[in-house]
Amino acid sequence: QSSTVTLYGIASSDVVSVNNVVGAGGATKSQTRIDSGALSASRLGFRGKEDLGDGLSAIFTLEAGVNLDDGQTAMGRTFGRGAFVGLDGRFGTATVGRQWNLNDDLMCGFFICGGFAAFRYTEFDWLSDLTNNTVKYWSPSVGGLKVGALYSAGESTTSSNGGRTVEGALGYDAGPFSAGATIHEGKNADASRTDRLWSLGASYKLGAVKLRGAFANSKTESLSLPTATTWDAGADWAVAPQWRLSLDHVARNQKGTKNDSYFDRLIVVYQLSKRTDINANLVRMNNSGTASERFYGNGKAGVDQRVIALGMTHTF
Amino acid sequence: QSSTVTLYGIASSDVVSVNNVVGAGGATKSQTRIDSGALSASRLGFRGKEDLGDGLSAIFTLEAGVNLDDGQTAMGRTFGRGAFVGLDGRFGTATVGRQWNLNDDLMCGFFICGGFAAFRYTEFDWLSDLTNNTVKYWSPSVGGLKVGALYSAGESTTSSNGGRTVEGALGYDAGPFSAGATIHEGKNADASRTDRLWSLGASYKLGAVKLRGAFANSKTESLSLPTATTWDAGADWAVAPQWRLSLDHVARNQKGTKNDSYFDRLIVVYQLSKRTDINANLVRMNNSGTASERFYGNGKAGVDQRVIALGMTHTF
Amino acid sequence: QSSTVTLYGIASSDVVSVNNVVGAGGATKSQTRIDSGALSASRLGFRGKEDLGDGLSAIFTLEAGVNLDDGQTAMGRTFGRGAFVGLDGRFGTATVGRQWNLNDDLMCGFFICGGFAAFRYTEFDWLSDLTNNTVKYWSPSVGGLKVGALYSAGESTTSSNGGRTVEGALGYDAGPFSAGATIHEGKNADASRTDRLWSLGASYKLGAVKLRGAFANSKTESLSLPTATTWDAGADWAVAPQWRLSLDHVARNQKGTKNDSYFDRLIVVYQLSKRTDINANLVRMNNSGTASERFYGNGKAGVDQRVIALGMTHTF
Repeated sequence: QSSTVTLYGIASSDVVSVNNVVGAGGATKSQTRIDSGALSASRLGFRGKEDLGDGLSAIFTLEAGVNLDDGQTAMGRTFGRGAFVGLDGRFGTATVGRQWNLNDDLMCGFFICGGFAAFRYTEFDWLSDLTNNTVKYWSPSVGGLKVGALYSAGESTTSSNGGRTVEGALGYDAGPFSAGATIHEGKNADASRTDRLWSLGASYKLGAVKLRGAFANSKTESLSLPTATTWDAGADWAVAPQWRLSLDHVARNQKGTKNDSYFDRLIVVYQLSKRTDINANLVRMNNSGTASERFYGNGKAGVDQRVIALGMTHTF
Repeated sequence: QSSTVTLYGIASSDVVSVNNVVGAGGATKSQTRIDSGALSASRLGFRGKEDLGDGLSAIFTLEAGVNLDDGQTAMGRTFGRGAFVGLDGRFGTATVGRQWNLNDDLMCGFFICGGFAAFRYTEFDWLSDLTNNTVKYWSPSVGGLKVGALYSAGESTTSSNGGRTVEGALGYDAGPFSAGATIHEGKNADASRTDRLWSLGASYKLGAVKLRGAFANSKTESLSLPTATTWDAGADWAVAPQWRLSLDHVARNQKGTKNDSYFDRLIVVYQLSKRTDINANLVRMNNSGTASERFYGNGKAGVDQRVIALGMTHTF
Repeated sequence: QSSTVTLYGIASSDVVSVNNVVGAGGATKSQTRIDSGALSASRLGFRGKEDLGDGLSAIFTLEAGVNLDDGQTAMGRTFGRGAFVGLDGRFGTATVGRQWNLNDDLMCGFFICGGFAAFRYTEFDWLSDLTNNTVKYWSPSVGGLKVGALYSAGESTTSSNGGRTVEGALGYDAGPFSAGATIHEGKNADASRTDRLWSLGASYKLGAVKLRGAFANSKTESLSLPTATTWDAGADWAVAPQWRLSLDHVARNQKGTKNDSYFDRLIVVYQLSKRTDINANLVRMNNSGTASERFYGNGKAGVDQRVIALGMTHTF
């Protein structure tokens, strides 16, 4: 048999110090927390690939998100981080099931990802999300260019395209330069409201430093929110074989309001081995007007939040 | 050590077109769906066998049903498709835990199984079901004959045999001919009502064609339903090394009523390899009177349903 | 790569006869039950160790408790029996995540453990428990002595140390003699009440017999219970290569009341192989006054309970 099941995953945990956590009564407290994978979500996965000949392969993935702090699987389901089967070949890759969306596939090299990221802004969770009932296609790279398409069936009983999600993406690579663009459209259950998001990003590798920039625009009708934009300017620096730094400034602007928000994030990674590191996340979220964005707790207008997370990540 | 854990499973997903899906308000819609394993339920399992000498082995199975469309484990539990330990030897096989019932073990070669099958009729889910708190025994085959027995403890606190299930089965194999019979009896929680089901089936292999026939009779007191019968006449045809067809007619008759129902089902399988196929299910359910049988949505008297499912199944 | 993932577990199931099971209405019934792992909890685990050089290793564990009787994972979560990552080295072992507490680590060689044990007494569940959001440390053994420390973050939004658990432990080994002591302190959510437990235990190996003795004292403010003590006197006897017996007397005393309780427990194990056994648990719980301790069903003042469990345990 030309196939095997591969068992893989990440075990990651953090000691977190966070201030201004808003509780049920509206009071704010500082907290010491033991959390799961602030930088890299803990997970356990099973995947396989069978060679069918002529460059064609059958592929599958079952990946559980795991909360290392309480032993629960993440996202309220066993295989929250993906459950799909498909074919990979000269035509590209086509997969069916629960899957990461195109934004996550493509934009995480331009936007910073991992726990404290632009997708944590209310209007921008679609920058990195998973969709059920999904057919996804990525073309092969031709002259550095590749395209992606995603369709997620709404399976609504009230409207034929209620709950439906469609996405398109375009990626480009040329030596040290990479760029990407995506569009996303989602319908609510009765198809009366439409959410739209588009994003652009690029990165350039300059020796040991990678510069990143990204922008996204979101119109979230389903939550009756004004149009919002977010951008991220960042850099990754391979300081030494064992040391790596990332610094990002991420801003969110709700158009026609003063309720702006931004955060700065510094990541420090020290590799104990290729597969194991010790890392630190330093994040400060700033809210203006009635903006109540945060990483922990309930929302409260204008309240900022500072997070220090010291973690260990082991990949297996 | 003469033992290993084997990791195995099936990843299967379908694009489904179905009409007359009845929603909450009673309106019917056509739907395009992305579903999990219409023909073969997606699953992830762990099993092992330890040679204890003298032909005796310890065996165990933990098998999760997986919804590939949303990443949840099936049947509202992690190991829905079986969790048991037992002994296998010259005396037969005795296992303890959550297990498939004798009907599923024996009758799935006579009744057609996989998603759209006779067990989907209200009175006949026991044709293929799993039971908790179960001791199961299958004898070895002696002269082509084998017997099975199943006891599932009700663990009721209101009646000593409340919730209890008992089953018996008899199987026979002689060259191209196979036959089987089962009886099933289940009590509700306070043992005031008894459900009874019996079934008969046979198959005959004639070159590349296997003919199948099966019949079952059910008295479902716990749901106050009239006695009902179901029968299935079908054939499997190995058209070519890579092509396989199955055709079945399945009917359900509620005695003393006009509320009859039947469906026809065509399965087409094209093997990409021994372990990977592309398949199609074409099913049409016909309801008479107030019969409201269906594969998707709520029930509605006399509404028929047509299903076209195009899928891929990968076994690992 | 100097690491691998190890898949391991236990599949264990029992046929149990138990009397005086109190149901919802207060009536008592005898029950025949099919249960999961009375002596050794059924489980499925994934663990790994990566050599980082200089005696340092990265370690992780994801361990699911499995109810073999119904296929559900135990403790209402997928990885109920532990989900943690950490470092093991000359400094000792430090781990972060959901973990067994120090009492379970240390005292299970002195108290009898497995299903029917002192931790089943209302005031003594902390004798063997798992804590979320936990940093745990065990020192290396120096001259036979080792120390442990545990901190579990409460992550309360009402009080800075609400929900917090801290533990300390001291273990000693010298040839056939072992001893241990632990302290435990837990706060309720608003830190207004404190539960305290301390325990002592020792064992001595005398040829084929190991004698065990243990004592614990508990003040459970969070449940407004009087101070209680429990002790366990027991012995393990390796009768023959394949046969093993354990006999324990366990008593619980609620100070200032007549509501005492004790149970006697006999365990008989017959090894079919190193990894597979057949076993019997015989237990009798005796309640005085309004004590309503039991292993199955609801509580009822002064009602005793007798349990006979015949099981099979397979380790993989």
